[in-house]
Amino acid sequence: MNLENPVIAIIGAGAVGGYYGARLAHAGYQVHFHMRSDASHVRQSGIKIQSKDGDFSLPPDRIRAHEHPATMPKADLIVVTLKTTANNQLPELLQPIVKDDSAILTLQNGLGNEELLAENFGAHRVLGGMAFVCINRLAPGHISHTDHGMIQLAEFSTPQGDSPRARRIAEIFSKSNVHCATIPNLIYGRWEKLLWNIPFNGLGALLDLSTDRLINSEPGLYLVRQLMADVQTAAASLGVRFPPDLIQKKIDYTRTMGPYKTSTQIDRHKNRPFELDAIWGKPLTAAKRAAAATPALEILYNNLLLIDPGSKFP
Amino acid sequence: MNLENPVIAIIGAGAVGGYYGARLAHAGYQVHFHMRSDASHVRQSGIKIQSKDGDFSLPPDRIRAHEHPATMPKADLIVVTLKTTANNQLPELLQPIVKDDSAILTLQNGLGNEELLAENFGAHRVLGGMAFVCINRLAPGHISHTDHGMIQLAEFSTPQGDSPRARRIAEIFSKSNVHCATIPNLIYGRWEKLLWNIPFNGLGALLDLSTDRLINSEPGLYLVRQLMADVQTAAASLGVRFPPDLIQKKIDYTRTMGPYKTSTQIDRHKNRPFELDAIWGKPLTAAKRAAAATPALEILYNNLLLIDPGSKFP
Repeated sequence: MNLENPVIAIIGAGAVGGYYGARLAHAGYQVHFHMRSDASHVRQSGIKIQSKDGDFSLPPDRIRAHEHPATMPKADLIVVTLKTTANNQLPELLQPIVKDDSAILTLQNGLGNEELLAENFGAHRVLGGMAFVCINRLAPGHISHTDHGMIQLAEFSTPQGDSPRARRIAEIFSKSNVHCATIPNLIYGRWEKLLWNIPFNGLGALLDLSTDRLINSEPGLYLVRQLMADVQTAAASLGVRFPPDLIQKKIDYTRTMGPYKTSTQIDRHKNRPFELDAIWGKPLTAAKRAAAATPALEILYNNLLLIDPGSKFP
Repeated sequence: MNLENPVIAIIGAGAVGGYYGARLAHAGYQVHFHMRSDASHVRQSGIKIQSKDGDFSLPPDRIRAHEHPATMPKADLIVVTLKTTANNQLPELLQPIVKDDSAILTLQNGLGNEELLAENFGAHRVLGGMAFVCINRLAPGHISHTDHGMIQLAEFSTPQGDSPRARRIAEIFSKSNVHCATIPNLIYGRWEKLLWNIPFNGLGALLDLSTDRLINSEPGLYLVRQLMADVQTAAASLGVRFPPDLIQKKIDYTRTMGPYKTSTQIDRHKNRPFELDAIWGKPLTAAKRAAAATPALEILYNNLLLIDPGSKFP
């Protein structure tokens, strides 16, 4: 695997993949973007990033955008930012660009993504990453990065999340002005991210409220805390222990964001399927299997099932 | 009190008061309607009722519609169907028409209405009634009664809900083609009604789903049952015991309704305040005071607080 001068592929480059891919390309790495609908626009007009860490643009001649990975070279580092609702396409999308020593890093939401990649391409190839970031796509090729931005990543198949490869990938991001670090335990990272996504993506979509509206009202904070307590219970039932102040830290972290609309709130606006199974379904199933009682999560999941344009119920 | 040839006043005649008042007037009783916005329309064009128990109309010359009860005579029977969100106006509205022997029957939703009337006009005057009915207002003076219709009523201030006066009022409704019966215990009746209103009005507004969509899907039924179990727990903590098959009966009763939109779902469509305190707030407070755990009710209440146009949060 060439991680000195890597060929990088971003699979499913929407807001998150577009932003991080643009950071990597801006730093001089060879980045190939797989974009479903924006590829031709981006080839013509480039990518524009508004970022709290500095605005920048990539002109058309510095963009390698592909409608399908079939036109890409084999990649040293494959970063998966595909929406989990399209995961059934993932094996077919990755097939053309995976080589013997490719590293596959999924930055997708929720649970189950590393397992899917491991089943299809071998666990040894897979790393998981959590992007703690506020990003929205404003228009084709136009992305707004309003807050945070850190990526934490870890190996999937080893007891330690850390590895030389993982550290090298973190370094590539760090050199691209993305704060990135390896963490010792991927499962912990996944549940820490869920501690935020489960309440804010869920309530944001259910109530059509941005994060500030949830965090700055008594009933919003009540609901957020009930859900965070359930996520803590679920995580603990799987052996993942949060530090005692983590919930308060996540609430404080949210206060800095301003009026942020989560991707699921935007999905609801645009009548697009929610990432229901990855963010709420699989965590709830894991909690139930471990006999953990998570009533607020179960109620939220059932509420979302009834409004998710991607479920069979609405 | 003249309940042989009574003067009847309907205070806050919307869909429910318009329908029952029209039934009474159609049967020949002297009925005065207090209507906020529809009075002049109704004086000009009358009232049209589409009802599963038989359509009928009241021509303008048989309608006594008033913008304010100040123009009404003193009433023998005052039927209150005012939306509970306007309860702060109730004392002033009733003042002109209450006489020494008036009976005041509230058919309003939720808890606290009898108490408010008792504080202002004396407990001995007050009766409570539950209207189990599917009614919507289609247009000014045009009401659709699609299912059910029974009124249960009881005295507020005596240990027995039943009384000669209560039976006489039930007879007046019965003679007007409204199935009506006295019940032995008002508190029981209130909680039985809440067993339906809490889930269906609440979820209907939160999810913008009609009753059939809630009852005919697995997640909808899950949420309904969780909430009904909480209402049962709350009622039991106050000494009100439901028969073991009541929840199933309420679900079966809902199946007959077809795609019914509750008043709170319609409130949400029209951006009008929800009856939040009467239907959810007061029952939750009562449950908490009795140390009953009702997590689904508490979550629903907090969700509704965040979307109710009448609360301070949205």
